[in-house]
Amino acid sequence: MNTLIENATILTMTSEDSIIKGSLCITDDKISHIGDSVPSSFKADLKIDAHGNAVLPSFTNAHTHASMVLMRNYKDSESCLEAWLSQIWAVEAKLCEKDIEAASALAICEMIKSGITAFADMYFFPTLTAKKAIEAGIRADIGLTIIGNLENAKEAERSLLPELLKLSENPLISTSVAPHAIYTVPQNALEYARDIAKANSLKLHIHAAETSTEFNDSIKNFGKTPISYLHSLGYLEQKTNLAHCVHLTEDDFSLLSGSSATLIHCPSSNCKLASGVANVKAWKQRGLSMAFGTDGASSNNNLNMMKEVNLGLMVASAFSKDTQALRPFEALRMATLGGSQALNHTDRGTLEVGKKADLMIVDLSCVNNTPTNDIYSALVYSSTSEDIKTVLCNGKVLMKDRNLTTLDEQEI
Amino acid sequence: MNTLIENATILTMTSEDSIIKGSLCITDDKISHIGDSVPSSFKADLKIDAHGNAVLPSFTNAHTHASMVLMRNYKDSESCLEAWLSQIWAVEAKLCEKDIEAASALAICEMIKSGITAFADMYFFPTLTAKKAIEAGIRADIGLTIIGNLENAKEAERSLLPELLKLSENPLISTSVAPHAIYTVPQNALEYARDIAKANSLKLHIHAAETSTEFNDSIKNFGKTPISYLHSLGYLEQKTNLAHCVHLTEDDFSLLSGSSATLIHCPSSNCKLASGVANVKAWKQRGLSMAFGTDGASSNNNLNMMKEVNLGLMVASAFSKDTQALRPFEALRMATLGGSQALNHTDRGTLEVGKKADLMIVDLSCVNNTPTNDIYSALVYSSTSEDIKTVLCNGKVLMKDRNLTTLDEQEI
Repeated sequence: MNTLIENATILTMTSEDSIIKGSLCITDDKISHIGDSVPSSFKADLKIDAHGNAVLPSFTNAHTHASMVLMRNYKDSESCLEAWLSQIWAVEAKLCEKDIEAASALAICEMIKSGITAFADMYFFPTLTAKKAIEAGIRADIGLTIIGNLENAKEAERSLLPELLKLSENPLISTSVAPHAIYTVPQNALEYARDIAKANSLKLHIHAAETSTEFNDSIKNFGKTPISYLHSLGYLEQKTNLAHCVHLTEDDFSLLSGSSATLIHCPSSNCKLASGVANVKAWKQRGLSMAFGTDGASSNNNLNMMKEVNLGLMVASAFSKDTQALRPFEALRMATLGGSQALNHTDRGTLEVGKKADLMIVDLSCVNNTPTNDIYSALVYSSTSEDIKTVLCNGKVLMKDRNLTTLDEQEI
Repeated sequence: MNTLIENATILTMTSEDSIIKGSLCITDDKISHIGDSVPSSFKADLKIDAHGNAVLPSFTNAHTHASMVLMRNYKDSESCLEAWLSQIWAVEAKLCEKDIEAASALAICEMIKSGITAFADMYFFPTLTAKKAIEAGIRADIGLTIIGNLENAKEAERSLLPELLKLSENPLISTSVAPHAIYTVPQNALEYARDIAKANSLKLHIHAAETSTEFNDSIKNFGKTPISYLHSLGYLEQKTNLAHCVHLTEDDFSLLSGSSATLIHCPSSNCKLASGVANVKAWKQRGLSMAFGTDGASSNNNLNMMKEVNLGLMVASAFSKDTQALRPFEALRMATLGGSQALNHTDRGTLEVGKKADLMIVDLSCVNNTPTNDIYSALVYSSTSEDIKTVLCNGKVLMKDRNLTTLDEQEI
């Protein structure tokens, strides 16, 4: 299958000045050509006219709980993460397989509509979410989610890991080991999770340093900050995705600087639950690996990466009192290449020949992007998800002119 | 002309629990009936099926510079308001009438598409913006904009005020006197502006307490905070709209509490320019009059009230470390009734029989609003402007199913 995107303004995201006016050719799942002309040998089965549009890598949502869309706009008046979680857990105890299947499909619909073609998930019934992702043609890094004691960790490994590893044979699916947090998983289970990851060459994915309560309890219970505690358990020696990281000390930064960890910025959830605002300016200055996550739709209350990137920029400048705390290109890179790297997807995240064709086409000629002036500013400040017209993942069109092609939006 | 909106979930915005399932009838420019059935005498010329939709008052954008859309995404890398303004002023010096006409039309398109049917403007060539608003069928409170010395103020009064007052005979248009700020207008010109307002029974509209530089310079130059200085000039005795109000002292709060001023919250502009975050929780606790403004599209970089309300909530909880700092219903009320009150529009801002039919229809059945759970949370957290399907102003449809009816979006 050959697809030609022509008349485009192509942001490769390899560097800020790498903006190419011309065409992008896709052969099967990969980008086969980018340039101002099209090779005469290339015969397109599908042509997309991208006149007046930007073409850039699609987003990676590096931390979410897809099926929590069911609790969207539910219990918004709780005072903090901890109070809210206790309400949410009461609902979650009643969820069944059918709920997760419907919720995963709904979440994937919403993600594709805001340009997301890969997501890292941490939730119950993970194999069902993986299957929905395959059906929809979107990439998913599915967490072997562990919450509670060592027996729970062993049970998750026994009952779910073999099927998750089997599902990971599909090029769209990968697996992580995802203990929920240091306050919901005891030390021996955290160590067991780490060992499962090591034995199977998997990433780890955990909530970390999200609230001041978590931070203070960690000091009280372990004599260490959350990051320092995770470091003492060997989590920073492995590839670990740390969601939130709002409450970090100088020593934490030193531990993180030398590690393989990626920090996942979830500004909507952190703002809405009054957890605080992560200091992304400091993350950037330390050269840490960074990505964006929407968190679940019950604390956000959506899965819209356009909104997440915009909010990330807004709170960075406001909190750091520095308009350059996070720049538009840098934020877009976090949401594209940064997310891909967090998921160990080395073959995507930029638009280059040989890379996977995971990309989106954004309308720059619409009212709210006129005049465009700076293209990166337009994408992060003046665009909305409505301007994302077409989305491809692994060379396949998932949305065309805002109509989903692999999922039935009305039915879902 | 009789319009019937049926099968709707009607949020009257008179109180949080005033949610009516049924129909809303419009006779000419006014709401003539709200209830679960339709009076048999009502014969509709136009029927709108609002099944699965919320109907609520449309937004008022209480502080903007519409024509600054021309400088959208321009000079985003400046370090602060003052540095950025000096770049913008260089462009503004070259603007001509044709630019303003085109820019006003573009801005009005964008505003209608995010549910705005009234805006308070402060800019050059104000009569041209007023005329575009009339053409588009949107309400505009047009500032007699004053920047510079006393002579400039007298010249603005002489050359523009008569035509603005004449234009204000149109029910869609009103006039304010809009001195730019205390750092761009000397005391005698501020006093002159105040007197023009008094003599013509007009509101005042001014930037106030926006940045720490303005605050510190005010202390240095006048021995007073910006609010206290404006108070000393009599601005708080009149109906004055104060845009931004980021930097307020306890004494400022005392002065504002007894005044007729409305504080206009512009979180996007304040975040993006690193001016800070206004303490809306404190505004609310003092019972001050509050509204939202997008500011100009060159510091925002859009005119999207859905995004503004969402950001206002996010930064309120994050900065106040209180999830209830501003609640969804309260934020929506600021953006609807609060804005109407700021503009002295006592006949709109809620949905009640006899009020003007200024309203919008928002899709709650779309993917990102499913499940809706709490309707106010859905509108502020999970909705995007794409979900605003239909907008009416003064009884007239300005947008139907996202197609503008009074403006040619493609041509503009």
